[in-house]
Amino acid sequence: MSTEDAYQKGLEVMEHLMGAAGRDGVVKWFDEFDPELAQMVVGHIFGTVWTRPGMDMRSRSLITMATLAALNRGPQLRVHIQGALNLGISEKEIVELLVHIGFYAGLPVMAEGLKAAREIFDERRQGTK
Amino acid sequence: MSTEDAYQKGLEVMEHLMGAAGRDGVVKWFDEFDPELAQMVVGHIFGTVWTRPGMDMRSRSLITMATLAALNRGPQLRVHIQGALNLGISEKEIVELLVHIGFYAGLPVMAEGLKAAREIFDERRQGTK
Amino acid sequence: MSTEDAYQKGLEVMEHLMGAAGRDGVVKWFDEFDPELAQMVVGHIFGTVWTRPGMDMRSRSLITMATLAALNRGPQLRVHIQGALNLGISEKEIVELLVHIGFYAGLPVMAEGLKAAREIFDERRQGTK
Amino acid sequence: MSTEDAYQKGLEVMEHLMGAAGRDGVVKWFDEFDPELAQMVVGHIFGTVWTRPGMDMRSRSLITMATLAALNRGPQLRVHIQGALNLGISEKEIVELLVHIGFYAGLPVMAEGLKAAREIFDERRQGTK
Amino acid sequence: MSTEDAYQKGLEVMEHLMGAAGRDGVVKWFDEFDPELAQMVVGHIFGTVWTRPGMDMRSRSLITMATLAALNRGPQLRVHIQGALNLGISEKEIVELLVHIGFYAGLPVMAEGLKAAREIFDERRQGTK
Amino acid sequence: MSTEDAYQKGLEVMEHLMGAAGRDGVVKWFDEFDPELAQMVVGHIFGTVWTRPGMDMRSRSLITMATLAALNRGPQLRVHIQGALNLGISEKEIVELLVHIGFYAGLPVMAEGLKAAREIFDERRQGTK
Repeated sequence: MSTEDAYQKGLEVMEHLMGAAGRDGVVKWFDEFDPELAQMVVGHIFGTVWTRPGMDMRSRSLITMATLAALNRGPQLRVHIQGALNLGISEKEIVELLVHIGFYAGLPVMAEGLKAAREIFDERRQGTK
Repeated sequence: MSTEDAYQKGLEVMEHLMGAAGRDGVVKWFDEFDPELAQMVVGHIFGTVWTRPGMDMRSRSLITMATLAALNRGPQLRVHIQGALNLGISEKEIVELLVHIGFYAGLPVMAEGLKAAREIFDERRQGTK
Repeated sequence: MSTEDAYQKGLEVMEHLMGAAGRDGVVKWFDEFDPELAQMVVGHIFGTVWTRPGMDMRSRSLITMATLAALNRGPQLRVHIQGALNLGISEKEIVELLVHIGFYAGLPVMAEGLKAAREIFDERRQGTK
Repeated sequence: MSTEDAYQKGLEVMEHLMGAAGRDGVVKWFDEFDPELAQMVVGHIFGTVWTRPGMDMRSRSLITMATLAALNRGPQLRVHIQGALNLGISEKEIVELLVHIGFYAGLPVMAEGLKAAREIFDERRQGTK
Repeated sequence: MSTEDAYQKGLEVMEHLMGAAGRDGVVKWFDEFDPELAQMVVGHIFGTVWTRPGMDMRSRSLITMATLAALNRGPQLRVHIQGALNLGISEKEIVELLVHIGFYAGLPVMAEGLKAAREIFDERRQGTK
Repeated sequence: MSTEDAYQKGLEVMEHLMGAAGRDGVVKWFDEFDPELAQMVVGHIFGTVWTRPGMDMRSRSLITMATLAALNRGPQLRVHIQGALNLGISEKEIVELLVHIGFYAGLPVMAEGLKAAREIFDERRQGTK
C-alpha cells in the first residue's frame, strides 16, 4: 500500500471512529506539532494497523478499549468509548467489557471505566456531544 | 442465581475454554489450596462474570486476551489463547489482536504475545496439546 | 454463605470503611447502573473477600492502599485512605506506608500518595469530610 | 543516623528477612558489582527505610508483598514471601493477602502469587530451604 | 560522602533542575510533612543518585522522562520536562523522546506526553513559568 | 520517504543494534509469521521511528532501555542492552541507567535489570555472544 493510500484509508477510519470534525481536530493537533507525526498517526496507525485484514473494526474497537482501560489510560479510553458507540457497539456491551476486565485487571479498572462510560452516555443523550 | 447454579455454570464455561481435563486440573489445584477459593474462582469468575448477559463468549475471550497481553501476564495469556482457539477464534484473529494492541500497549506486548501464540499454534498442530 | 448473608455482611464492611452515607452513595451509584453489579460489588467484594478469615480488616486496609498506590489508582486510593482512618489506622502509619512502597514501586508513588494523604488529612481536620 | 549506623541496622534487618546466609549473598552480589551500590541497598533501603519509626516490620512486610505482587515482580515477591515467613507471618495470611489484592490488581496477581507461595511453602516443609 | 555533603549536593542538583524557587518549594513541602523525608529526598535521591559518576545529568534527565512517561506519571513527568529544558535539552529532543517511547510503551504515552510538553513549551514562551 | 527506503534504512539500524546475523534472525522470524508484519517492524519501527531527526541513536538506545526496564519487559531489555553495547555505550553507563531508574520505577527494576546486564556482560567477555 502506498503512503498516500494509507493516509486516505487512515482518514476514513478516523472519520468512522471520531466523526469528520473529531478527525480533523486530531490531524490538525499533530500537524501543528510536526507534520511527519500527523502522517505517522493517520497513515500508520489508523490507515495500516486498523485496516489489516483478519479482524473486523468492531473487534478492534473492543480490544482497544480493553487495553486502554487495563493500562489506566483515561483520556484515550474516552476517545475509544465514543468510537465504539459511533461504530454501533451498544452501551450495554461497553459496560460488560469494563465489568469483565475489571476482574482481570483489578476493580479500579471497572470503577474508573464505568465513571467515564456513564459521563459519555449522558453527554450523548443530552446531545452535548 | 444460587451459589450452586453459579458453580455449575462456571464448570461449563471452564470446559468450553479449557476442555474437561484442563478444567478439572484448575479446580483441583485451587481446591487443595482452599476449597472456598475454588468455589470463588469457579462460581464467581467463570459462573457469574463470564455468563453475564450483554456480551458473548467470543468477545469476552478477545478482551481477556487483550487485557492479559497488555498487562504482561504471560501464563494467563497462554491459558486464554488456548481458550480462544477452543471457542473457534482463528489463529489469524489472535495474531491480529496481538499486533493491534502492540501499538496501544507497546511493541513488547506484540513480540511476547506472538512468541506465545506461535508456540501454542505449533503444539496444537503437533497434537501435543 | 448465602447470597443474602454476603450482601448484609458487605453492607457492614462498607459502613466501617466509608460511613453509612458513603456506603449508600456507592451502592446507589452501582444500583442505578445495573442492580446485578451492585449485588456483585457489595456481596462479593466487600461481603465475601473482605470478610474471609485469616486476615484482619486492618491488614486488609494496609495491603489495599499499597496495591492502589503502586498501580497509580488515585481515586480508589483516596477512598481507602479515608477507610483506613475510619478503621483507626493513624496518619503516621499511612505516611510510612507511602514512603516505604515508594522505594518498591517508584518515587512518584510516594509523591502522589503523600499529596492525596495530606489533602485528606487536612479536610478531616477542617471537618469538611 | 550516621552512614555506618545505617549500614549496621541494614544488615540486621536483612538478617531478619533473609537469614545470615541470604543476607551475605545479596551483599556480596551488589558488592562485586559496585561497592557503592551495596552501601546504598544495605544502608539506605534496609537500614533507613525499613527502620523508620511509625510502622512495624510485620506491616512493612505485608505492604512490600502487596506491592511486588501487584506490579508482577515475581523474583522479588519470592524473596519477600520467604521474608514474611521468617518474620512469623503465617502461610494462611500470605494466601489471604494474595487473594485479597487479586481483586484490586487483577486475578493473574492471585494466580501467580499463589503459585509462588505454594512452591515456597512446599520447599520449606521439605527442608530444602 | 557525608550526609551533610549529600544534602548540599542534592540542593545544587535540584536548583539546576527546578530553579532556586522550585527547589525551595519542594524541600519545604516535604519538610513540613516530615523533616527526615526532606533529608531523604534531597540527600539520597538528588544528592546521591543523581550525582553518581558514570552518567551525565543530561542522560539522567532523558531516562527519567522516559521512565515517568512510560509509567503514566503525569505530574512528575511535567517536573522533569521543565528540568530537561532547564538543563538545555531542546524542545525538539523532548518531542522525539516521547514519540520514540510511544512505540515501546504504547501510543497513549506519546499522546499524553506531547500534550504535557506542548503546555509547558507554551507556558515558557509566554513567560508564565 | 518511500516504503522501500524506509525498509533499507530499517535494515541498517537493525544491523547497528543487533549485528547482521541478529537482524536476519528477527526479520526471518516475523517474515515466516506474516510478511506484512516484517515490513512493519523493519520499515516503520527501525526505518522510520529510529531514524527521525532530532535525537541521536545513542540517546534513543538509552531511553529504549529505560522504558523496557521500567515496564518489566525482560526479553526486549536484553536485546537493547546488547544493542547499547554494540553502539558503544559503556557497561558502566548501562549500570548507572538501571540504578537511576530503579528509584523512579521501583527497586525491582534495578535488581532485575542488573541481573540481565551482568549475564550479558559476562557472556560477551567469554565470547559466547
